[in-house]
This record gives sequence, structure tokens and C-alpha cells, in this order.
Amino acid sequence: SRRYTITLLPGDGIGPEVISVAKNVLELAGSLEGLEFGFKEMLMGGAALDLTGVPLPEETLSAAKQSDAVLLGAIGGYKWDNNEKHMKPETGLLQLRQGLKVFANLRPASVLPQLVDASTLKKEVAEGVDLMVVRELTGGIYFGKPRGFGTNEDGQEIGFNTEVYATYEIDRIAHIAFETARKRRGKLCSVDKANVLEASMLWRKRVMAVASEYPDVELTHMYVDNAAMQLVRNPKQFDTIVTNNIFGDILSDEASMITGSIGMLPSASLGKEGPGLFEPIHGSAPDIAGQDKANPLATILSAAMLLKYGLGEAKAAQRIETAVLDTLNRGFRTGDIYSAGNKLVGCKEMGEEVLKSV
Amino acid sequence: SRRYTITLLPGDGIGPEVISVAKNVLELAGSLEGLEFGFKEMLMGGAALDLTGVPLPEETLSAAKQSDAVLLGAIGGYKWDNNEKHMKPETGLLQLRQGLKVFANLRPASVLPQLVDASTLKKEVAEGVDLMVVRELTGGIYFGKPRGFGTNEDGQEIGFNTEVYATYEIDRIAHIAFETARKRRGKLCSVDKANVLEASMLWRKRVMAVASEYPDVELTHMYVDNAAMQLVRNPKQFDTIVTNNIFGDILSDEASMITGSIGMLPSASLGKEGPGLFEPIHGSAPDIAGQDKANPLATILSAAMLLKYGLGEAKAAQRIETAVLDTLNRGFRTGDIYSAGNKLVGCKEMGEEVLKSV
Ligand SMILES: CC(C)[C@H](C(=O)O)[C@@H](O)C(=O)O
Ligand SMILES: CC(C)[C@H](C(=O)O)[C@@H](O)C(=O)O
Repeated sequence: SRRYTITLLPGDGIGPEVISVAKNVLELAGSLEGLEFGFKEMLMGGAALDLTGVPLPEETLSAAKQSDAVLLGAIGGYKWDNNEKHMKPETGLLQLRQGLKVFANLRPASVLPQLVDASTLKKEVAEGVDLMVVRELTGGIYFGKPRGFGTNEDGQEIGFNTEVYATYEIDRIAHIAFETARKRRGKLCSVDKANVLEASMLWRKRVMAVASEYPDVELTHMYVDNAAMQLVRNPKQFDTIVTNNIFGDILSDEASMITGSIGMLPSASLGKEGPGLFEPIHGSAPDIAGQDKANPLATILSAAMLLKYGLGEAKAAQRIETAVLDTLNRGFRTGDIYSAGNKLVGCKEMGEEVLKSV
Repeated sequence: SRRYTITLLPGDGIGPEVISVAKNVLELAGSLEGLEFGFKEMLMGGAALDLTGVPLPEETLSAAKQSDAVLLGAIGGYKWDNNEKHMKPETGLLQLRQGLKVFANLRPASVLPQLVDASTLKKEVAEGVDLMVVRELTGGIYFGKPRGFGTNEDGQEIGFNTEVYATYEIDRIAHIAFETARKRRGKLCSVDKANVLEASMLWRKRVMAVASEYPDVELTHMYVDNAAMQLVRNPKQFDTIVTNNIFGDILSDEASMITGSIGMLPSASLGKEGPGLFEPIHGSAPDIAGQDKANPLATILSAAMLLKYGLGEAKAAQRIETAVLDTLNRGFRTGDIYSAGNKLVGCKEMGEEVLKSV
């Protein structure tokens, strides 16, 4: 039997609830495929700030680095919103991504037939949507230097950041994106603002260069403003999208809302080597924290991505994915995806139902 | 009778068609209110590139500066897409905005009852949407320095841009946004990424400072990724949105697509003094250029914004807005907004029908 060490980062808000449920599902699905897990729970985000004064304690990062994969709940909350930058939960997340060197963020957004009504888009527009956003995660304006505050020639205060990409950063994310598209429907759309930004011009040039190694993948380019429109107009036109850190932040959230069920959507953040980071795309939802109302399915599906992309355990991953669909088919729904005729359950009960289906 | 000089910039693709129709409407609506116009047509965009080698000839900029307002059709096309930066039609547009110092871009996005079916959003989500995006237009990453290409420490090629805002730039766009919100429903949502970017932190700080002068306007803040989601989830929650140049580019296009009728949407770009720039938000649509299929209503409504915001001629503006609604009520539709039971017309005929209603 294969043994893996998993770092659990419950974080803030509904994070602990969804992590505890997902852990059980991961454990069961794994054991049925002969896998054993050692779990290590560590502090992160606001929870870490309150207890240690920093959003990502050193022990957390080093435990994460030494493990085989990291499963994160959610971070942040009103309480820390006005903190200075180095004391924000979000800063801890950025440090974790950078520390683990997970430069490729995969965010699937698909509309399940069972949940097509949850979308605010018309049924004929939403049904069948199945896309993947590949977002560059450790570069661009999120990390670019110089950054900070200063004064301009007129003595006015300024705030500034640098959007910057180097060839190798673009090349490696492009490779991941082409590989991803190849395993899907073979279509890749690269999103940039190459009609205005030099960083985007280099992006487009390198994506086109890397494309020569993937003649079987159909590559197109789209400006980011147009992409934001096309996701609303006709999301079905997209298979795989690749884009930079900030555009990916915006477009992947837009794409996820188009499915109408962000409580369902997982994500994977991967590097060249070392453990991957897996987390639901939803936030910490402080308003419903501790009330057993959260939808744990996004975190459960993140555990499936952990198995598949993080550990190469596709069979155990498949067990979880099938169990989630089966649970939906049996009519169980948390509040965020509830519709008439189904059974309304809380976070824990949803977890128990998924366990039955694993 | 009051006399105004208007610079017309037909530009590329469908630009000349929609400008010629809008000019007639502007002339008639104005004359009924005792206004006289002197029109001066100038080269801009790809049309200028082909004839003069630059996308914004000096004569065009100086004519624009000397006029009372500028009406632009559309610029760009496949033909020039791979040009170097200084030879792109888009660069001409950026030079024009900078040359006219039009730092405030107003982009209304509203769903007309007559066209609610054109939206890809469910009727109950789309109907009643009426929002205004106030986009900063002459600062941020579009114009920030340093920018360009270079090599990093490892000898790798890099492309870089600077997102930078100074206090005065944020303050002046904030004032415009608060004034705009005050004339609407009194709600302003400022969109930034202050959890990550220093430029956004200063943005938020200054918007909050300016807010003290507008106690009657309700101010909220939203991160850009969340805003991209909320526009899909529930666009009715927004009244006025204010944001930086690049986020405004993305969100205003997303918002316009939510209405389902980007062929209908105008925009105004205004400075502290000097002529404003008015243009439809749609592009040059090279695929239907010269076929008399374009929807001229966005340009006609841009002419109405020109009258209202550019010349202070609210009555003549109102004439145009009423005429457009009346024409829609009489069932005339271009292809992009056509639905069964209505009368399909081309660009010219639509213009003639609007003239009848002025
Ligand atoms: C919390 C925030 C720093 C983060 C980001 O902007 O990357 C989040 O929005 C995300 O997309 O994971
Ligand atoms: C053509 C392009 C430079 C321009 C922009 O990005 O500002 C356009 O998208 C717009 O929004 O007017």
C-alpha cells in the first residue's frame, strides 16, 4: 500500500468545516484503492495571524514543502480586511504559492446537467459549458518589482506595481496549458492585452513559439476585454484558456460564476516538482461560518484533483468524482445549490452522503 | 443659434457607415433646437496608417483639440493586428485619449425592456439592469513607465509594464464618479485589488478620502475578481462603478455584454476642459464592414452623449434618445438585435427611421 503525507490547512471561516468533511472522503476513497494517508493540520491565514502574528508561519510552509500534497480550506474575513499588507491573510496565501513554486493554477468550470438551473445564464447558453482556466500563479503584477509607494516629480503620492513576465515563466505555463488542452478537446485560447501591454506582447510571442511543439492543439488569441465578453455571450466556445496571474484571477472567477455553482468548483496549483496546492475556489464565507451550511463539494472535488494531479492516483480520484455525481443524483443539495424537489442538507450530512457513495 | 465644430473620425471597418448615419441624426436633432454644426472629417486608425503611416496624424489631433467635441466610429482590423506597437490603430486611440486629456470614460450599460431577450442572462436577472461604469482612461498600466522589453539577471528576455496612480489622478476620477452616482441612484462601488496591489491600496485610500465630500452617496468597495462574478450573478446590485483603466476595460466590456446589445451602447470620455471624445463601445467589425449591416444606434446614442456631456445641450440629446426608443418601439431592428416579429433593416434604413422619430 502506498503512503502519502498530506498537509491540511483549514484556514478561516467555513474552511475548517469543509476540510474536515473532505478529509474523511479522501481517506475512504484512498483506502479503497490501497492508499494510506498521514495528515498534518497546520495554521494558515487569519487563524495563524491571531495565534502567531503572521499569516503563514514558517512551520506551516516547511510542513507543506515536506508533504506530498497540500489541501487548503479558505482564508480571510472582515476581521483582517483592514490589516496592513504583511498582516493580511491573502499575503499568507501568496507566500504559500510562491514558497511551493506552484506556478500553474488549473481552474475547471463546468456546468453539471443536475445544476444547470443554478446558472444565471439561459439554459441553452449554460448547458454543456466545460472549460478549464490555466492561470499563471507566481508571476506578473502579483509579485513584480519594483512595487510600493512613493512620490512623483510633482510631490504627489503614488502607488505602483510592475507587471513583468520572463520568457521561461511564459514558456512553462504555456507547456502546461498545451498539455491540458491536449488531454481535453484540443483547443487552447491564450488571453492577453497585446494591443496595449509589452508584457502581453512577449506573452503572445512565447505562446506562439511553444505552440510549434503542439501541432495537434488549435491555438487562438483573444484580448482580455473581449474574453470577459465572450464568457458571457457564449462560454461553450472555450475549451482551455491560458492567461496571466491578474487576468486569470478575474476571468476564472467570472467563468466559475457562469456555472452558477461556485460552491462546487475545485482548483489545483502545480509546480515543476514538489507538492501541489489544492483548494476550493470559493472564499471563507464568514457570514455562514460555523453554521454547518457550507457546501463541502468544492473541497471534496479539490481532494479528487489532489489525488489525480498531485499524487497520480487517478482511480481514487475517479471514485470521489463519481461519488459526488451520485450524491447529486440522489437529490442531496446544500443551500447554495438547492432547488425545489431536492433534499436540503448541511455540510456534515452532505459529507456523509458522499461517503456512502464512495 | 449656437454653433459648434465637431470633429468626425470615421476610422475603420463599419466606422464610416455608422458615423455617416449618426452625423445626420445629430444635425437634425440639433437644428430642431437651434444648433448649427460645422463638421470636420479627419483620418484616424488604420485608415490613417494606410494613407499617412501613423495611426493619429498631427492634423487630426490638432483639429480635434480645436473643436467642441469629437465623434469617433471605430478603429482597427485584422490587417493591422500584427503591426508593431507604434503602427497599431489602437496606439492612435491611446494617443488621442492622452492628447485630449480625457481621463474619465463613462460607459452606461442598461437593458432596454424592448431588448431584454437579447441578453444571454435569464430575463429576471437581466431586466432592469441600469449601471454606469466610470473608467479612469489616461493613467494606470496603459501609460505607466517604465515599460518595454529587456533582460533579467538570468539573461532571459522580459516584457514589463507599470501600473501606477498618483493621488491627483485618483481624486479627479473619484469626483467624477461621485458626481455621476449623485445624479443617478446615489450608489457608488469602487473596484480594486487592494488585497494585493499597492496601486489599488492608494486607490482605495483616496476614494475613501474623496467620499467625505459626498455624504449623500453610498460608497462600497469590491475586489475586481468578485466584481467580475457579481456582474454575472446579479448585475442589478450596481448603480455606478468606478475603477482603474485596465479593470475598467475588462469590466465595462463584461457589463455591456450582459445587456446583450453591445450594438446599442455609447460612451463618453471627458477631461477637465476641452473637447470630449464620444464613441460606440463596439469595435470596427471588419467582417460586416461595407455591407450596410451595422447597427448605428450605439453611435447615434454617442452623439446624444456628445450633446449632453460634451456641449451641455440636454434638450437636443433627449430628442435623440427618445427617437431611438421610438424607433425600437416601432419594431425596427438591425441583425444583431433582431428577434422574430420585428422588421429587419440595415444601417442606413435604421438611420432613416431614427430621423423620422427625431
Ligand atoms: C485571495 C486572493 C489573494 C486570491 C488571488 O487574487 O489570487 C484569490 O482571489 C484567488 O483567486 O485565489
Ligand atoms: C482598442 C483598445 C486599446 C481599447 C482599450 O483597451 O482601451 C478598447 O478596448 C476600449 O475599451 O476602448
